[in-house]
Amino acid sequence: MDVIEVPDPADPRLADYVRLRDTNLRRSIEAEHGLFMAEGDKVIRRALTAGFAPRSLLLTRRRLDALADLAAAVDAPVYVVDQAVAESLTGFDVHRGALAAFHRRPLPEPGAVLERARRVVVLEDVLDHTNVGAIFRSAAGLGVDAALLAPRCADPLYRRAIKVSMGAVFTLPYSRLTDWYGGLGLLRERGFHLMALTPAADAVPLPAALAAAAGRPAALLLGSEGDGLSSRWLAQADTPVRIPMAGRDVDSLNVTAAAAIACYELTRPAA
Amino acid sequence: MDVIEVPDPADPRLADYVRLRDTNLRRSIEAEHGLFMAEGDKVIRRALTAGFAPRSLLLTRRRLDALADLAAAVDAPVYVVDQAVAESLTGFDVHRGALAAFHRRPLPEPGAVLERARRVVVLEDVLDHTNVGAIFRSAAGLGVDAALLAPRCADPLYRRAIKVSMGAVFTLPYSRLTDWYGGLGLLRERGFHLMALTPAADAVPLPAALAAAAGRPAALLLGSEGDGLSSRWLAQADTPVRIPMAGRDVDSLNVTAAAAIACYELTRPAA
Repeated sequence: MDVIEVPDPADPRLADYVRLRDTNLRRSIEAEHGLFMAEGDKVIRRALTAGFAPRSLLLTRRRLDALADLAAAVDAPVYVVDQAVAESLTGFDVHRGALAAFHRRPLPEPGAVLERARRVVVLEDVLDHTNVGAIFRSAAGLGVDAALLAPRCADPLYRRAIKVSMGAVFTLPYSRLTDWYGGLGLLRERGFHLMALTPAADAVPLPAALAAAAGRPAALLLGSEGDGLSSRWLAQADTPVRIPMAGRDVDSLNVTAAAAIACYELTRPAA
Repeated sequence: MDVIEVPDPADPRLADYVRLRDTNLRRSIEAEHGLFMAEGDKVIRRALTAGFAPRSLLLTRRRLDALADLAAAVDAPVYVVDQAVAESLTGFDVHRGALAAFHRRPLPEPGAVLERARRVVVLEDVLDHTNVGAIFRSAAGLGVDAALLAPRCADPLYRRAIKVSMGAVFTLPYSRLTDWYGGLGLLRERGFHLMALTPAADAVPLPAALAAAAGRPAALLLGSEGDGLSSRWLAQADTPVRIPMAGRDVDSLNVTAAAAIACYELTRPAA
């Protein structure tokens, strides 16, 4: 353990931690340096367990004793700062007292994450990091095998997504399609039944669609928060599917809620 | 229609619209004046349809023509402001171009919303407005009959909750318990089977619990984002229930995801 006191928030050794709430800045910093940020000791431990290599750990002084075992487990510099330095540096109240920067790893190829996968989710343009994190958590927790992301889907390794996922983004295998237009072809070649989730009234109720495709590997396509799936992906799917709704002038669910129910149906044991 | 141009963001007629992102300030303004804010024409129309009385409508100039029918439908002053005035006043980019202040109505008594209700959700200390909104949307959309809120649960008529709910907070009957400690007694008196959602491994899988209580009115208890239900409410419930999980080191779901699955199970037709 290499504990280093850093009194100055402008110290270049803390550069990985600047302005964590500035989404645009963070996107470019994290892409350029190939890093991601984990927040809170539980999530940091999960990243370590998943085999990610830390670049550094940042602890606030008041949490140093409580997190001594975490500091000891990290094979990288451990920076210790005052609460005020942490806040000035990151732009928010680091009340959990622990942040870590990790090296990203190259994503596997889409074909590799589909090996042996029987039930996958495919996120088209889910743009909100909270939703991406919550969907990964549901998918991993309910037993979905893998996720594929369209080119514009938000980054699962963005701090907020990691936090909301409670680290599920480290354990659910995923990859990103480089080709939006033709990207679903790969799933079709592998024999997946492509189900496009939509609120359209003439779509097939999800339980019926799953029963009809029983025995085949299944891919569930989820679209963006506002507009749902693109017409291209809807047209490429085998079956438009919907979650049966009861009315009350509510015709669709929040994407996190819809994804949870769909993953639940996708993975529940056949009756 | 009474359209009034207002060039000054400090004009007292716009006081309902001030600093909409300042949660603490808004809580006190809205409590003191008995108002709530709706954002976007779709949600504003839903509030009108649900019979809420508008205090005023605020439109940005560039959306005035497109929303002329909305302005005509509102029996209250319609303030028209420039984009810059709207932003300076509210503290955010009002890109939807429409905000409205409405009068709150007295909430019904808890006993009144339970009349004829067979399936209800009870939110203990769900503190995040996004989660409250999404849970109302799921509950209403899937056919839950009513919601009860513990004293500390976040306000469903807070702007963010309304927006995420897509107006479901206007249509799902709900009330607030004034007594946290003994509040579940009312449900018990009415014959409800109380199911407490928890990630505890020894809880009963939700489908089995529902099957065992078939025919009885059912209340699903949901706890706070971080800690779940209080030990008091867990102890007061008839059955601790869990959503069956598959592993991958994920032992629980986000409360919005868990609530969606639970409402889905609660309301699905018996097999």
